[in-house]
Amino acid sequence: MTVGIVGLGLIGGSVGLALREPGRTIVGHDPDPEAERVARERFCVDRIAGLEEVAQADVVFVAAPPRHVVSVLEALRKVKGENTVLTDCTSVKGDVVAWAKETKEADFVPGHPMAGHERSGAAFASPWMFRGARWLLTPVKSTKAAAVRQVETLLRAMGATPVRTDAETHDRQVAILSHVPHALAGALVTMAADLDCMDVGGGSWRDLTRVGGVDPGLWTQIFLANRHELARSLGDFETTLAKLRESLERDDAQAINAFFERAREAKERSAPPTAPAPKAKTRTIRKR
Amino acid sequence: MTVGIVGLGLIGGSVGLALREPGRTIVGHDPDPEAERVARERFCVDRIAGLEEVAQADVVFVAAPPRHVVSVLEALRKVKGENTVLTDCTSVKGDVVAWAKETKEADFVPGHPMAGHERSGAAFASPWMFRGARWLLTPVKSTKAAAVRQVETLLRAMGATPVRTDAETHDRQVAILSHVPHALAGALVTMAADLDCMDVGGGSWRDLTRVGGVDPGLWTQIFLANRHELARSLGDFETTLAKLRESLERDDAQAINAFFERAREAKERSAPPTAPAPKAKTRTIRKR
Repeated sequence: MTVGIVGLGLIGGSVGLALREPGRTIVGHDPDPEAERVARERFCVDRIAGLEEVAQADVVFVAAPPRHVVSVLEALRKVKGENTVLTDCTSVKGDVVAWAKETKEADFVPGHPMAGHERSGAAFASPWMFRGARWLLTPVKSTKAAAVRQVETLLRAMGATPVRTDAETHDRQVAILSHVPHALAGALVTMAADLDCMDVGGGSWRDLTRVGGVDPGLWTQIFLANRHELARSLGDFETTLAKLRESLERDDAQAINAFFERAREAKERSAPPTAPAPKAKTRTIRKR
Repeated sequence: MTVGIVGLGLIGGSVGLALREPGRTIVGHDPDPEAERVARERFCVDRIAGLEEVAQADVVFVAAPPRHVVSVLEALRKVKGENTVLTDCTSVKGDVVAWAKETKEADFVPGHPMAGHERSGAAFASPWMFRGARWLLTPVKSTKAAAVRQVETLLRAMGATPVRTDAETHDRQVAILSHVPHALAGALVTMAADLDCMDVGGGSWRDLTRVGGVDPGLWTQIFLANRHELARSLGDFETTLAKLRESLERDDAQAINAFFERAREAKERSAPPTAPAPKAKTRTIRKR
């Protein structure tokens, strides 16, 4: 089978690396020749091609920056092969799902891999990027069930676990699971900049600020695309912090202890994603 | 030489594991027999002893919960050997340094390893806990220089890099480098608990919430011990988040981009701690 990738950055490049194996041909396209060069040099794709050729693949992953995704989908839709399934990797599903509902495109499966890296570009792509990660899919009424299944098969081949949900739930969840964390990391690293002591920080500091230096252009698009949900979540977060601060100000051990008790309980209920066990049995060649 | 450890939890246990090697005897004590049993079973100490015997060691590390440290130091001071150097591992230095100034104890070196783990107890201790970490020391006027040097030698033996500072600077820095991160992780994990989607989170979620479930009793003590600095830092943090939220509410791409640009610049200026290169040359045995 042939897999197409439009947008050869960190995610597109990783999809290529994760899916490249005998029996699958990966054809990639990016408007930026430099991105295409890096993706080819790092063996993310078998070959680079024009958009029209990529659009003939069995499944095409669109991994473009958020604000370009709908126009890329529009372009692909006009030239794609009859049975070609389209899927995207955009981290906010509102606009993309609105497009899916409007066009009633049966062969489009909106998706979002819950994985990434603090650096951008195919230079940081990894074949293991999606292993153990959840890959959210938000099909709409018009989405063909067979198209969803076809995408899911490829996600499993990358080591990801597909999870189906709706766009609204998705956007509310990722506001807290991904966008608030990025806001906190950015705010924290900025706050410490004047202290001139960042090299002193331990493990909690390193973890909390790992994604503190992400690509401003990309993340501004992501934040704006989900601005209503994110603003609401940030507001809730400010309230929680303010309560904790007030407990500190009045030396209230009981309230602070309760804060940590609630957190511990919540933490215990959360389980980190684990890689699914491979389903296929090991083949045995018997002696004849 | 003999090293004493009072308090055989995560930090005390790790000090033992990190320092245990031929030529050094580790003697440990904990008021809790269960903690002593775990530390002995995990080989954190060569032997368990009473407080008086531990107090005869060349250097004694006090790794007790924050609110007990001063009373443990007081007890040790009364029975310690003539040349015994005392040092502590408390994450807030205010009270401990006040005690050092009051008693003018020349053989006490206030300290704080910038390392830890989200789980407590010697069961999670590791000989590599301090490798590559900074270990802050806040000696006062009365602290003997030779005592500081003796402690620093042991810190280097554990793979840590000693950094000297004063208690006030220390407490202000750790409010941002460690206590705010723990507050954020706790608030974030609590906020997501109702969403029932925590298993969906990716790398940024896992990193931002790793320390979200720390020991409530211990961390309430730490937060209260540093409550003035921490409340101030949390207030600053709330302001930063509120500005970001307002930028989102008015769809201000430029302001959001500026937020990420500042963060990226700060992040680039921060360097993660790296393990110091070993100073000793490899010994060569020449053919005679």
